Amino acid sequence: MTCSSRPPEVYQDLERRFRRLALIGDASGFLAWDRAAIMPKGGAESRAEQLTELGLIRHEIMTDATLGEALDAAEAGNDALDPWQRANLVAMRRKWRHANAVPAALHEALSRAGLACEMAWREARPDNDFATIRPLLETVIERVRETASLKGEAFGCTPYDALLDQFEPGLRAADIDPVFDDLAAFLPDFIDDVLIRQGQAPAIIEPTGPFPEARQRTLGEGLMKRVGFPFDSGRLDVSHHPFSGGTPDDLRITTRYDEADFTSSLMAVLHETGHALYECNLPAAYRHQPVGEALGMAMHESQSLLIEMQVCRGRAFIGFAAPLMRAAFDGAGPAWDADNIHRLTTRVRRGLIRVDSDEVTYPAHIILRTRLERALIAGDLAVADLPGAWAEAMADLVGIVPPDDRDGCLQDIHWMDGAVGYFPTYTLGAIMAAQLYQAARAADAEIEPAIGRGDFAPLYRWLIPHVHAHGSSLGGETILTRATGRGLGLDPDAFKAHLKTRYLG
Amino acid sequence: MTCSSRPPEVYQDLERRFRRLALIGDASGFLAWDRAAIMPKGGAESRAEQLTELGLIRHEIMTDATLGEALDAAEAGNDALDPWQRANLVAMRRKWRHANAVPAALHEALSRAGLACEMAWREARPDNDFATIRPLLETVIERVRETASLKGEAFGCTPYDALLDQFEPGLRAADIDPVFDDLAAFLPDFIDDVLIRQGQAPAIIEPTGPFPEARQRTLGEGLMKRVGFPFDSGRLDVSHHPFSGGTPDDLRITTRYDEADFTSSLMAVLHETGHALYECNLPAAYRHQPVGEALGMAMHESQSLLIEMQVCRGRAFIGFAAPLMRAAFDGAGPAWDADNIHRLTTRVRRGLIRVDSDEVTYPAHIILRTRLERALIAGDLAVADLPGAWAEAMADLVGIVPPDDRDGCLQDIHWMDGAVGYFPTYTLGAIMAAQLYQAARAADAEIEPAIGRGDFAPLYRWLIPHVHAHGSSLGGETILTRATGRGLGLDPDAFKAHLKTRYLG
Repeated sequence: MTCSSRPPEVYQDLERRFRRLALIGDASGFLAWDRAAIMPKGGAESRAEQLTELGLIRHEIMTDATLGEALDAAEAGNDALDPWQRANLVAMRRKWRHANAVPAALHEALSRAGLACEMAWREARPDNDFATIRPLLETVIERVRETASLKGEAFGCTPYDALLDQFEPGLRAADIDPVFDDLAAFLPDFIDDVLIRQGQAPAIIEPTGPFPEARQRTLGEGLMKRVGFPFDSGRLDVSHHPFSGGTPDDLRITTRYDEADFTSSLMAVLHETGHALYECNLPAAYRHQPVGEALGMAMHESQSLLIEMQVCRGRAFIGFAAPLMRAAFDGAGPAWDADNIHRLTTRVRRGLIRVDSDEVTYPAHIILRTRLERALIAGDLAVADLPGAWAEAMADLVGIVPPDDRDGCLQDIHWMDGAVGYFPTYTLGAIMAAQLYQAARAADAEIEPAIGRGDFAPLYRWLIPHVHAHGSSLGGETILTRATGRGLGLDPDAFKAHLKTRYLG
Repeated sequence: MTCSSRPPEVYQDLERRFRRLALIGDASGFLAWDRAAIMPKGGAESRAEQLTELGLIRHEIMTDATLGEALDAAEAGNDALDPWQRANLVAMRRKWRHANAVPAALHEALSRAGLACEMAWREARPDNDFATIRPLLETVIERVRETASLKGEAFGCTPYDALLDQFEPGLRAADIDPVFDDLAAFLPDFIDDVLIRQGQAPAIIEPTGPFPEARQRTLGEGLMKRVGFPFDSGRLDVSHHPFSGGTPDDLRITTRYDEADFTSSLMAVLHETGHALYECNLPAAYRHQPVGEALGMAMHESQSLLIEMQVCRGRAFIGFAAPLMRAAFDGAGPAWDADNIHRLTTRVRRGLIRVDSDEVTYPAHIILRTRLERALIAGDLAVADLPGAWAEAMADLVGIVPPDDRDGCLQDIHWMDGAVGYFPTYTLGAIMAAQLYQAARAADAEIEPAIGRGDFAPLYRWLIPHVHAHGSSLGGETILTRATGRGLGLDPDAFKAHLKTRYLG
């Protein structure tokens, strides 16, 4: 049996089924993008029904008894498959296990609860209205706990580990704990040191706004093109919360504009561009198959943070971009000097809002959310007690207390939508980004100088084959180990080294 | 058995199945809207795959053997149903018959061919490139002919009648022929008379452009609101070809802007608003059920043409709107007088483009298309001969010859997308609009004066209960007969009377 022979019919049948699942998933993705970016308010209820129905159809396909049988048969004959097909089978099985661990009714109930809570949250957050959200979020968390409990039983892991696995294959709390403990020990003193250092430096000169939305958009699109975003196969729009959606050939990035501060939207746009480039460089031969998908949210976040934090907030890229920023807003004076812009975009502050945080304090926000969501899932924390627990943890970890829920526990969409176990992937992504960019520069000394000229080609010559092109054919640990050539996977040292160089170097 | 009792389980099961079909259909509708309005070019292929897959899923649900059995059982016990439920069953059966007359493979082949041809047409039309379209359109027409033939056999009617029934339930060529023959006999002399009359009048003063897109949009939105478009439940966007999509609670209207002529886009917007208002006033209790849907495309077009042609191009509405138009473009001088604007928006010209045509010459464009598509389906005309046949028919029916295919047989999206049998509904809609508006004014003399004040409430007090609220519970003939109280259905006399009053009165 050679790898080039036609795969067995049972495997081809699986590919057809998962292709259908992927196409329905893509359709749902665009409907979710539409809802977040452009849908009028009146469409909320029926959009929720459409998305629930499509989710239910996927769930039915995934829980059809013949699918489990086909997987059994294909696994039994997997010596007839090539390595990608075998990896595809592994990825199919993982999806199957997640879907089959919960009954359709619970799946649908969680989906409905999440959509209802998220839609209410869009108004409740600006209104600082936790009371409206509380019962809706209680229902979401209750459905998530039921889901986690069933999946944990089925997979032989803890309920929270089962949730983590949804977002990054194979991720376990035991992987996170030592890394987060390490960072929790490192950060307090480090943040103090950085704040002292930055406080002693001459004051940053704030460029004077307002920065009109249309000009911010033009600047953002121009830099997105430089970074490699293919506008023939994608769009930039506006939504409540920046995100990256769509498909590899139709990438949908969103941002939001603050006319008093152009860097917030610009860096969000570059961040989402990193996500989008991962998607569009996935292996095209396995499009619409599980093995052709992005690995997980930690690896995804490593790609957005590699672009935003490692590259675009770095001195080399700012040297290239600062004159473009100045020109975009007809700026003049020393505020627009690259050194000042670089200090502006690497300024560290204790802030309330995760998405506006710098890379130094960001992990503290994540450690907070990880602790609270673990407590919610364990049943050690009630939703009603969330505002208080949030305030306490903020004081503890970030050193400030939110004045209200709007900028406290209502600030993020994730829990509202039922996404528990997602938050840790942000900081794991930051760590992986530091490891990967360190390895890339070590492999090709031309990468950083090229970025200083706005040329991303050398970076992608390394990054695509080492990360993007693997899709889900390799685990995160393997991708990291091979890419860094250091014989170990997740390693906070590269991240800490990056922080020390950039902020205390 | 009383009507208020709970309907039998078999009927409830049917409602659940058709609700799922409606939700998938709504999802597809938004994906099609996205494709036409905002999708980047790169997404074309995978969007086609998504839409094909969703269409296939609907086809599978519709052709599942148990659905036919459930319909049989529900029909056998339909004395347990109330009149709306019985009408729902009739509408379900009609959909079932259409879906079950063709095998899944043909259904999918037609869908794919239409999507491929439509996407190519988006570039081929501006390039005047019939050669690229020809093989794609040949495939579309071949698949439509196969479909029509199978449906004709199944329904016991001609292939073309089977196509007509897709767009307006129960419509037959035998209904169209006498009406179109009547108009074909009436129009040539009438067009001559109108052109002589308009030629003798003082020259129309053209308002001087350019009319910036943003201001056209603001004006259009303002008048849409007046006409009743609910922007909390809908959007106005830009596409290649104006259309109305979405759902009753999320209406998606598109238009295109010509900065040299604001009336073209404005009237398109008001036309699509008429479509949208029909959708949002459909019976909410039967949302997502066949009986709750708009009846067919002829009735739909009657609603858009009632708003655009009968009302918004009428002198009363123009009297209200002309000062708003003037203000929108900072206009000055006699060009902006209501009488001049009214003459501008009722100007008759022999033109090449259907969508830009006035209501007097429009039926000639439709009679042309109806003749050609009947010949294509009968096999009497080859796609290769379409440009020649088009030019000949244009000379014959409209009195001018297109200089190229761009403004000839490539101008419309319908055939490209596989929609054959659709064109006649435009002129049937125009006739029904004249009948309905005549009946409305006869019923309430306050309707037209109110429109002169921009108040549409009296019109809707009549129109909603007489048309919109029926959904698909009554046939078009019955709706017309009851609404006009004249004991007959489709009647070209009201349309001719309207034309005579407006253009020769």
